[in-house]
Amino acid sequence: MKQVAIGIDIGGTNTAFGVVDQEGHVMVKNSIPTPKHGDKEQYAEDLATAINEIVESVKLMNPEIEILGIGIGAPNGNYYTGSIEFAPNLAFKGVVPLAQMMKDKFPNMKAIALTNDANAAALGELIYGGAKGMKNFVMMTLGTGVGSGIVVNGEVVYGHDGFAGEIGHYTVEPNGRDCGCGQKGHLETYCSAGGMKRTAFELMVQHNAEDSLLADKSFKELQSKDIYEAAVKGDAIALETFDYTGHILGRSMADVVSYFAPEAIFLFGGPTAAGELIFGPTKKYMEQYNLPIFKDKVKIVKSELKMGDAAIVGSSALVWKELDK
Amino acid sequence: MKQVAIGIDIGGTNTAFGVVDQEGHVMVKNSIPTPKHGDKEQYAEDLATAINEIVESVKLMNPEIEILGIGIGAPNGNYYTGSIEFAPNLAFKGVVPLAQMMKDKFPNMKAIALTNDANAAALGELIYGGAKGMKNFVMMTLGTGVGSGIVVNGEVVYGHDGFAGEIGHYTVEPNGRDCGCGQKGHLETYCSAGGMKRTAFELMVQHNAEDSLLADKSFKELQSKDIYEAAVKGDAIALETFDYTGHILGRSMADVVSYFAPEAIFLFGGPTAAGELIFGPTKKYMEQYNLPIFKDKVKIVKSELKMGDAAIVGSSALVWKELDK
Repeated sequence: MKQVAIGIDIGGTNTAFGVVDQEGHVMVKNSIPTPKHGDKEQYAEDLATAINEIVESVKLMNPEIEILGIGIGAPNGNYYTGSIEFAPNLAFKGVVPLAQMMKDKFPNMKAIALTNDANAAALGELIYGGAKGMKNFVMMTLGTGVGSGIVVNGEVVYGHDGFAGEIGHYTVEPNGRDCGCGQKGHLETYCSAGGMKRTAFELMVQHNAEDSLLADKSFKELQSKDIYEAAVKGDAIALETFDYTGHILGRSMADVVSYFAPEAIFLFGGPTAAGELIFGPTKKYMEQYNLPIFKDKVKIVKSELKMGDAAIVGSSALVWKELDK
Repeated sequence: MKQVAIGIDIGGTNTAFGVVDQEGHVMVKNSIPTPKHGDKEQYAEDLATAINEIVESVKLMNPEIEILGIGIGAPNGNYYTGSIEFAPNLAFKGVVPLAQMMKDKFPNMKAIALTNDANAAALGELIYGGAKGMKNFVMMTLGTGVGSGIVVNGEVVYGHDGFAGEIGHYTVEPNGRDCGCGQKGHLETYCSAGGMKRTAFELMVQHNAEDSLLADKSFKELQSKDIYEAAVKGDAIALETFDYTGHILGRSMADVVSYFAPEAIFLFGGPTAAGELIFGPTKKYMEQYNLPIFKDKVKIVKSELKMGDAAIVGSSALVWKELDK
């Protein structure tokens, strides 16, 4: 029997899911729209139906397969309660006890668990990726926001209420940029994709850089990939944007090191595709800010999870982690 | 048989030690000078002799006593290696494998372990104090520096190399005040006893407050207790100093909450004697900076460990924690 796990990634627009083997390969996957209507029961029903379909299809090709469980990654996913709780970007109001709803629909599964996206990514790295065998590491996810999954003594840090790891919302610049959460100067306002855009405009303003390759696009239009492309062409504003982003990110990593003394910090998400443009300054500044006892000890590593499948793969890792208890 | 543990607290000037019962009461204690000469072997020998003396004295009064082990709290104490490593304020050069040296001298003890002072304080709170039964909490120690002991899933966070929890050395103000470690703007430069003094002078400068009760003492002379006494008398600079300190401390706690989502944050050390003067603003600002999901959830609590004995009691807690594994 080949043992596999199902991973579900719930996003604002789509819910993706797949069957993942023990090496982290997605054998088959599909997706359904994440509903705009907010009918939890109907959504759980549709999701179960769609999962049964891919399970049937994978069993046709691999009759000797055993499906051990379902792992779910969701915004505001709470591992302790197995619920999605007050997720601002989803239509569901209040609390959705999705892990329990799935248990009701799949009573024979050995493990069904739910957590948030960044914790799922950290578990993916731990079970299938570069963090295999590590007991203490931090996964930082750069995207629309900045998230983190923190592993201490081999276990994800969920905290007292299940919402630990909100690293994107700690203050890196008192009275700094407005954050979507209502506070100011949070890490996410500098090191998310949108944060990089804000930096690019700040630097154009500072240097009055009408000749920058980034000066032709509106504030609404400019994307972080435009900054990457301009940097590759040697644009000074774009290059300084990466240095500035790496400065704040590297300093925040030195803070992370002072708190957790991890073996490694993994970076995941779109901006990591820029390679040395982002890793170079980030490493330099982390070392510059590290305490003497931590210097040259902590690795910064690009996540080994493949961008497209990472969320499904990460969520599926929850299953192996549960069964390993 | 009444079971007890020995706690040793190694400070720059003195090494204090005592026999502690399961309720955290110090039955007998004593101290020897921490040597200035750096002879590790002689120090371990002297320490063992002094410990044997208090053990004999406590056995005279309580013949039915069983001493289970020795817990040691020391600056730069590394739990994993059981060593004091490159402690800047101690005369010993390099690495002192004190846990092993004590094991050699007390081969019949069931548990001998070593950690740093702030972790020992956190364990003291967990085993004997207000954190009994808690799985996720943070202990912040305010004194000459700012330290922390972080407990996640019921275990102290030691990190990959044993040096986690250096919360006093994360950046709260980029390009802020010079820190003793060589960096700038660390929490410790604002919220330690010395940080409060720096704030008081900064505020006198700002307001040109020659009429403050604090304006008669030199920068070298002024102590944090002077600030407390002036605040009690209603001195505006002293009161603003507490507000400012609570502002930075409360904001740093909101950062701690975003990282760890603890059930409570315990405060320990001299400045906590000021009561509401420090707890009031700290709570107010923590709530102001907390993310909505964390508001009104996390308690800020004064440590229940008694100031004088706390270090001995905290160190002894290591023994119960070891035996509980």
